[in-house]
Order: sequence, then structure tokens, then C-alpha cells
Amino acid sequence: MALSVQPSSSPLLTSEADEKYANVKWEELGFALIPTDYMYVAKCKQGESFSTGEIIPYGDISISPCSGILNYGQGLFEGLKAYRAKNGCITPFRPNQNALRMQTGADRLCMTSPSEEQFVEAVKQTVLANKKWVPPSGKGALYIRPLLIGTGAVLGVASAPEYTFLIYVSPVGNYHAASSGLNLKVDHTYRRAHTGGTGSVKSCSNYSPVVKSLLEAKSSGFSDILFLDAATGRNIEEISTCNIFIVKGNIVSTPPTSGTILPGITRKSISELGRDIGYQVQERDVSVDELLEAEEVFCTGTAMVVKAVETVTFHNKKKKYRTGKEALSTKLHLMLTNIQMGIVEDKKGWMVEIDGYVPGTKKEISKT
Amino acid sequence: MALSVQPSSSPLLTSEADEKYANVKWEELGFALIPTDYMYVAKCKQGESFSTGEIIPYGDISISPCSGILNYGQGLFEGLKAYRAKNGCITPFRPNQNALRMQTGADRLCMTSPSEEQFVEAVKQTVLANKKWVPPSGKGALYIRPLLIGTGAVLGVASAPEYTFLIYVSPVGNYHAASSGLNLKVDHTYRRAHTGGTGSVKSCSNYSPVVKSLLEAKSSGFSDILFLDAATGRNIEEISTCNIFIVKGNIVSTPPTSGTILPGITRKSISELGRDIGYQVQERDVSVDELLEAEEVFCTGTAMVVKAVETVTFHNKKKKYRTGKEALSTKLHLMLTNIQMGIVEDKKGWMVEIDGYVPGTKKEISKT
Repeated sequence: MALSVQPSSSPLLTSEADEKYANVKWEELGFALIPTDYMYVAKCKQGESFSTGEIIPYGDISISPCSGILNYGQGLFEGLKAYRAKNGCITPFRPNQNALRMQTGADRLCMTSPSEEQFVEAVKQTVLANKKWVPPSGKGALYIRPLLIGTGAVLGVASAPEYTFLIYVSPVGNYHAASSGLNLKVDHTYRRAHTGGTGSVKSCSNYSPVVKSLLEAKSSGFSDILFLDAATGRNIEEISTCNIFIVKGNIVSTPPTSGTILPGITRKSISELGRDIGYQVQERDVSVDELLEAEEVFCTGTAMVVKAVETVTFHNKKKKYRTGKEALSTKLHLMLTNIQMGIVEDKKGWMVEIDGYVPGTKKEISKT
Repeated sequence: MALSVQPSSSPLLTSEADEKYANVKWEELGFALIPTDYMYVAKCKQGESFSTGEIIPYGDISISPCSGILNYGQGLFEGLKAYRAKNGCITPFRPNQNALRMQTGADRLCMTSPSEEQFVEAVKQTVLANKKWVPPSGKGALYIRPLLIGTGAVLGVASAPEYTFLIYVSPVGNYHAASSGLNLKVDHTYRRAHTGGTGSVKSCSNYSPVVKSLLEAKSSGFSDILFLDAATGRNIEEISTCNIFIVKGNIVSTPPTSGTILPGITRKSISELGRDIGYQVQERDVSVDELLEAEEVFCTGTAMVVKAVETVTFHNKKKKYRTGKEALSTKLHLMLTNIQMGIVEDKKGWMVEIDGYVPGTKKEISKT
């Protein structure tokens, strides 16, 4: 029952049914999967290019037991959000940045990636097909999850002979239940990534290894876990699923993208906004000592946007940081979400036009 | 069309059809998938135990796009072989060792694993159901690939709510085409594993990251790639899919299983056989300098069993090693394969009884 959708001709995109809201309790949204109506699937054989994808009903996919993803973890994912602006328009946030990151990851994992244009077009199609699942303005966002996985059968360790590019979506609310700020634990046992590994691409292989550490931290009452660098164990690197910043005076510091941390798109956007309002944003090694001497700490990521850190626990030492109205993170969070939700004009060209309206003038990807 | 097979009652296991050989060109076997008739599948919800599995026709599986394996690489695999002995009996090699390793891996990746008994029983059932795909004695082996994967849907990074234990098989011949010995390249750019990571378990997440390095080595004419430790870059660790040993005089040395290399079952077996014939086998850090001063180097792994290394290239230095009749690896290879193929008596209890005959006296797992 595959259903091909053209951006401007399918009844899916213009019928009245798409204008209605899905039957979701919007006030209760957390960060768990709510299956929607449609997903996007495209395939590509090794050495070829991705075919035009299809919008098909959301559901289980059929895959070889001998596929690259099931046996050797040959997979990348991306995460981005589409927002319903105050005026009702739906806009994804910087999808071309995810497209470019997927290309870098595909090169590292020896896969073919969709082109930037294909990726962005696929995101648009998937969001449009699931329009009624985009939460009302201010009540959350449509989380968009593109996957690029080795689906061809391969017995010896090698790249799979076929890849699948798939996008599914889910309406989401807050990633962390904590309201005031996160309580982080610095990990002393596990490490997330090493130089010469895959820590700087969004490979699925970076994530299952952090689950144990995350579960242990949560079972001790922490919100999340902060990893140190594998080489020295002295510098902070990344939270399980987001980047970290520290603030002292006018200086905002965040670990550099030198191979072991993910180059976050929210990280990049927040760095820009921080500079816009006069902060000096430095990308450099940040030691645990500096972390413990900071006035403020915050995390950035697609799922959580910007989230203040209330405390960091290192061995038996617990440090408390500035949060709330006076915090820079509160200001940056508001600046970014105001752009994302179309409350202020998007002078950056970060929001992408889907159906006729763009809250801004510069477009990151021109409408085709 | 699920078909449940009981080890001693199903017609699958006793019919004449199972005694025949599948239509395979046995002389031409390499290490590529040849789909067989059946696979084994069992499922388990988080916090519960694995149900009794089923032997079902081999084919694609149905999986959620939002599953732990597709998004976060939550998966382990194992590899073992079953041989057809000279007398026609079919015997897997040390399956309980794979069962135990899967348990360690499942703990690291926060999954539930099948019990040792379930695992070994599932291996037996899968081999029996695919009996005609076991190559004639001396022509290869039936490669057995157990998977443990997070198949439940999970949107935020966490353990999946459901796991699948699956076994498929394929008849295989030699892993490497090279006859005399491997030509290895020492990697200067990439690293395989780090302390506090998952290098010591058979997580799928260890394998997609090595493909790029492996492809680059192969495109330069090398057989495989040798990784150095991520911490210092001074010690040898592991080939892309096998362990490494060096020989100098009476001393055989291999890197220790201290968290960053896979505790290979062939590695363990060969160490034992080496000691049996009077060699001193040391598990300790082995530097590149020592590697370059060794008289002999060889690799061990399920796929290749024991394979001599003919040359190692480190930067622009190429070192040649002893291979052929005089090499220890040739002797150890013969000792092990003689046990595996039932040519000599299995005094170790390594070969497991499947259908009435065991080439040895001690049984690793008693017949139930």
C-alpha cells in the first residue's frame, strides 16, 4: 500500500483532514514515540544513488537478518524538529544542517547518503504527510527522526550492499521532566568516544554503549550523565544525548568538535545567538576543574533545546549553578524558541518553508 | 508459517531429506551468505525471560523503525561453527562459550540474554533444521550467527522494551582468500576501542566503525588491518575481526582481555593448545616494537580459525614472518581443526553432541 506523495499535488497535503489535529493529549506530551500516519522510505544500492523515496503508511519494516545494521551496527540517525508557528504555519528547524551531518557520517561508515536536497525534500514530505501530528503552537514539536541504515545482507564485516533512508516522526514535549535544571553526574567508569572512533558522527554505535551509564545515573537520582574524554579523563565532553556549555563572566565555553563529540546543530545555533548578544563563545578543551568553577552550566540538543544544569556531582563533590530568570541559558532558550515558534522574525534563515509561509526572509534551502 | 521444532521429535530432524546435501558448490565456498532453510527466533520483554523460541523459515524479519537496534545500535552478535566430522556426525564448537559471552555483552548493553542452556539448545535446533547445509567433511563449516537485538520501539536513548534472539546460518569456506599468510597494515588513524567502551563485548557497535579502515587497507593491497590501543597508540590490540599472537622462541604473546579487545573463543582454545605442546603463552601488552621483532605472527578467530601473518607494514616498514610448515601457527591450526573435524579425539570436551555421536568423552553441555 505504498503511496507516493508529491509536495504540491497530493490530496494528502491539501485535504481538510490534514488541517485537523490528531487525537493526542497535547498537554501531556513527553519524549516517547506516538506512532503517526506516514513515514518516508528510499533505497540505494552500493555505488549508486538514492532513488526517489515514497511516503508510505507508518509501520514495521522488513529487513534481512543478515543486514549491516542488525549485525554490524551500520547506521546513522538524525533528529530535528518542526514547529507550528503562532500563525499556524509549520516549519522545520535547519534541516539542511542534518543533511550535511548525515553526509559526514555516511562517509565515516562507508555508506551512500541522500543529497542535501533529497534529505530536505524528504523531511518536508514526511512532515506534510503527518501535518495533523504537529502539536499546537507552544505545546511541543514534531520530532523528525531520519535514519540511514545498511539493509543489504553482508556476512563478513564490510559495508552492506544496500542502504535505506527512512524518516519517521512523533509529536514530542519535554525531553527531561526536571523543571528547574538538570542534575548531572560526571562518569568515572565509562567513556563515550575516542580519537579515531565515531564520536563526531551521529552513528547508532555511539548510543547503546552509553545506556548502562545513563541507567546507573538515573537510578541514583541524577537526570543525566556527563562523559569525560577517553584520552585523559580530565576534560568534559558530552552528556548522553546533548552538548554542554559553561559560563563564567562574559565567557561561554564548550568542548571543541575535534573528533570525539557530536557537532550539535543546537550547539552551533546557540553559540551564534550567544555571540549576537555580546558573549565571547570559545570552543576549546574544558577541564572538570573549570566546570566546577563555572557560574552557570547548560546543555543543548534538539530534544531539549537549551536546558540549565542545576547541579554537577563529581565524585562526592556537588556543585550548584545559577538557573532561572537570571541565567544566560534562560535567555538563550527564549531567543531560540522564539525563532523556532515564529514569535520573532527569523533573521537567520533557520526556519524552512513548507507550505507557503516562512517566518523570516533568508531561506536556508530555497523552495523548489 | 512458523514451525516449532522439538530436538528429538520433529520430522525435520529425522526425515531422509535432512540427510541429503543442499545444492551448493562446496568446492567454491568463501565467506558470503548462502541463505538456508530455517532460522531460530525467540523474544523477550524488558524485565522478563526469553520465551521458548521457534524454528521458522529463513527470511526477512519485521521490525519497528523506532527499534533500539535501528536507532541506537543496541545489538550483539556471536559467531561459531558446526563441522561435519569424518563419520558424518555434526558438531558445533564450544557453543556454551558464545552463550556466556553473549550474557556479558547483554549486561553491558542493558539487554536480557537467553540462558546458557537456551542458547546452546537454540544453536542445536538451528543446525539440525539446516543439516543439509553443513558442508561435507573437510570442505568448510556451517557458520552460525546468533543475534541479540533491541527490537522494541524506544524514542529517547534507553534500552528497548523488547529483545529478539535470532540465529541464522550459512555454509562457509575460507574467510581470507590469501593462501600463504595475511599481509597486515598497522592503522595510524583509526582506533577500534577505548577503556570504558564496548571493545570487550561482541557489540555490533564495534564493527561498523572499522569498515572504513579495512576498506582503505584492502584498496592498498593489504589483507586486513591491525589496530593499536586508543590510549597510547603503542600497543597492538586486534585485527578487524580476529585476535593476534606473536611468537619469539618458546614464548607466545597476545594482548590481554582488559576491556578493549574481544575475548576470542578461538584465542582461548589456541592458547590452551599452545600450552599443551610446551609453549609459554603470555597475555600481556604487546608493543609495536615487539611485533616487529617477532619471529612469527598469527591471527585467530571463528571465521579464519588460525591464520599465519606473512607481513606487517608499519608506516613504511614492512616486516616478514615465518609461515608454512615450520610455523607454530600451522601446527596449532592442524591441532584445532583435527579436533573440530573429528579427526582426532576431542579430549577437551569442546565439540557438542547434536545427534547421538560425540567425538570425545567429556561433554561441554550434557545432552538433555
